[in-house]
Amino acid sequence: MTDKKLIGVDLGGTTAKFAIMTVDGDIQQRWSIDTDILDEGSHIVPDIVESINHHLDLYNMTPEDFIGIGMGSPGSVNSEEGTVIGAFNLNWKVTQYLRRDIEAGTRMKLAVDNDANVAALGERWKGAGENQPDVAFVTLGTGVGGGIVADGHLLHGVAGSAGELGHVTVEPRGYECTCGKKGCLETYASATGVVRVARDMAEEYAGNSKLKTMLDDGEQISSKLVFDLAKESDPLAVKVVDRVSYYLGLALANVGNMLNPAYIVIGGGVSAAGEFLRKQVEAYFEEFTFPNVKQTTKVRLANLGNVAGVIGAASLALQFDQQ
Amino acid sequence: MTDKKLIGVDLGGTTAKFAIMTVDGDIQQRWSIDTDILDEGSHIVPDIVESINHHLDLYNMTPEDFIGIGMGSPGSVNSEEGTVIGAFNLNWKVTQYLRRDIEAGTRMKLAVDNDANVAALGERWKGAGENQPDVAFVTLGTGVGGGIVADGHLLHGVAGSAGELGHVTVEPRGYECTCGKKGCLETYASATGVVRVARDMAEEYAGNSKLKTMLDDGEQISSKLVFDLAKESDPLAVKVVDRVSYYLGLALANVGNMLNPAYIVIGGGVSAAGEFLRKQVEAYFEEFTFPNVKQTTKVRLANLGNVAGVIGAASLALQFDQQ
Repeated sequence: MTDKKLIGVDLGGTTAKFAIMTVDGDIQQRWSIDTDILDEGSHIVPDIVESINHHLDLYNMTPEDFIGIGMGSPGSVNSEEGTVIGAFNLNWKVTQYLRRDIEAGTRMKLAVDNDANVAALGERWKGAGENQPDVAFVTLGTGVGGGIVADGHLLHGVAGSAGELGHVTVEPRGYECTCGKKGCLETYASATGVVRVARDMAEEYAGNSKLKTMLDDGEQISSKLVFDLAKESDPLAVKVVDRVSYYLGLALANVGNMLNPAYIVIGGGVSAAGEFLRKQVEAYFEEFTFPNVKQTTKVRLANLGNVAGVIGAASLALQFDQQ
Repeated sequence: MTDKKLIGVDLGGTTAKFAIMTVDGDIQQRWSIDTDILDEGSHIVPDIVESINHHLDLYNMTPEDFIGIGMGSPGSVNSEEGTVIGAFNLNWKVTQYLRRDIEAGTRMKLAVDNDANVAALGERWKGAGENQPDVAFVTLGTGVGGGIVADGHLLHGVAGSAGELGHVTVEPRGYECTCGKKGCLETYASATGVVRVARDMAEEYAGNSKLKTMLDDGEQISSKLVFDLAKESDPLAVKVVDRVSYYLGLALANVGNMLNPAYIVIGGGVSAAGEFLRKQVEAYFEEFTFPNVKQTTKVRLANLGNVAGVIGAASLALQFDQQ
């Protein structure tokens, strides 16, 4: 086993997180920098390069001490080319040559994949996935994303869209999605989706409910508020969480029916609702899976929190160890 | 490249098909024998062994001329153990030790997988899948089965149920399935499912229709009849095919949304309805996939017919070439 280390970079719209890790997945150093999206995001890559080089100096390390760098990025990532386009939260409007520029700036090899995929790799490797060969991951945040590891391989599909669980159709004539079609999981189970479901259900709801009163009063609500009120048995909030759980349970059941992974892991901000949400999703999951899948595929909560991305990103660099 | 050959065996309830193939997938010899399911199917394995040994003699070949044997079987296959249980159409009531018995009888290595998976491998390798790394296959017959190749790997999942597309939930409150849950694709899109949809829709249908008249007269109908009448524009049959296509399109769209394969291949007896069915399925597939998948994942008809199984089965033996 090599003594060389891995660098993981998890680039987001607010911060870029970094870690130096062993090949066994133990974190040795962690730091982060703010993401500077000014000037069409043109400072982002130079800032990453500078921060890596600065920390290598700090720790008295050289590029030869590393197998390479793995990185997760928002936007549409071309892993083979090492490029990204369309990462709107970074202000990147033209193709970014991450591999070319970061390899030149750090003298280390770079592998890159999208942010949901690296979070999936992280949870699978060192988190709730227990390093099983078959693990699916869904992340519930502003949007809904995901990543699938099958037979030990992170899936990309023919054009990079494998694992995009946010656009599974759960209600054929349902809500319109920003993607152009109807009834995507994301329209019900993202943070904004939960609020949308709450608004719609409030219109038809006649009973007593704090959530209903707040919506009628024009107050801003969040998905967190909906879950908190449901935990307090607010009757409308309970119904909203039930409907969200139904759609999540249906989508994840079909992930199970198709792929029979050991674990389907739920992460992202909305999953902060925790076991309260997981149990309700699991009930629908069990209703919509056939017996062998119901018995062998388990729905779990992510357990790495926001370090999943940087750990999974670092694991991308393991591929350079065999070269 | 080795000169050694592969043997493929596709075991079914009526016949067992055999082929001797090159490692490039060219068939050199083909034959078949009847499946003798008497005496709890206890003659099946000895008959397969005898038939292989007999044909090796006939062609003046020895076990050393072969890399090994690959086999597809009905029932619940344990590929790692080389065993099968629960193949009711073969009368197999107890565990069958296929690998142990066939290896002992032929002095060649045996790899085994389920019949839908080997058909998927065959169509992917030499058929409509064009040997792409990401191909999904659905087979519409008495039941609905399937197989998924992702990133070049045939998927099994944690307990062998990956690729079971027949039990994807397409209508959460739909028809009861033999598996115990509701709304499985199989209840709508298998040969018996199509007839079930026709009977149900006939009850609510008031107009003129030959299909309606036949059902009202208590005549036996088949899925083939429904498709034939739909091609002749029988108004009820057209509606039935539309509903079947809707559920197939929805299920395959979600295969696409999750896995983004290059091709989703439709095979099996019901797919004899051909381009007439494929086009209608494709229309719903496009409605229920998000843009990048709609543009890059294609729905195709299988093109190997009933040799897909024996070709895919033979390909299982390629694994022994690297050992």
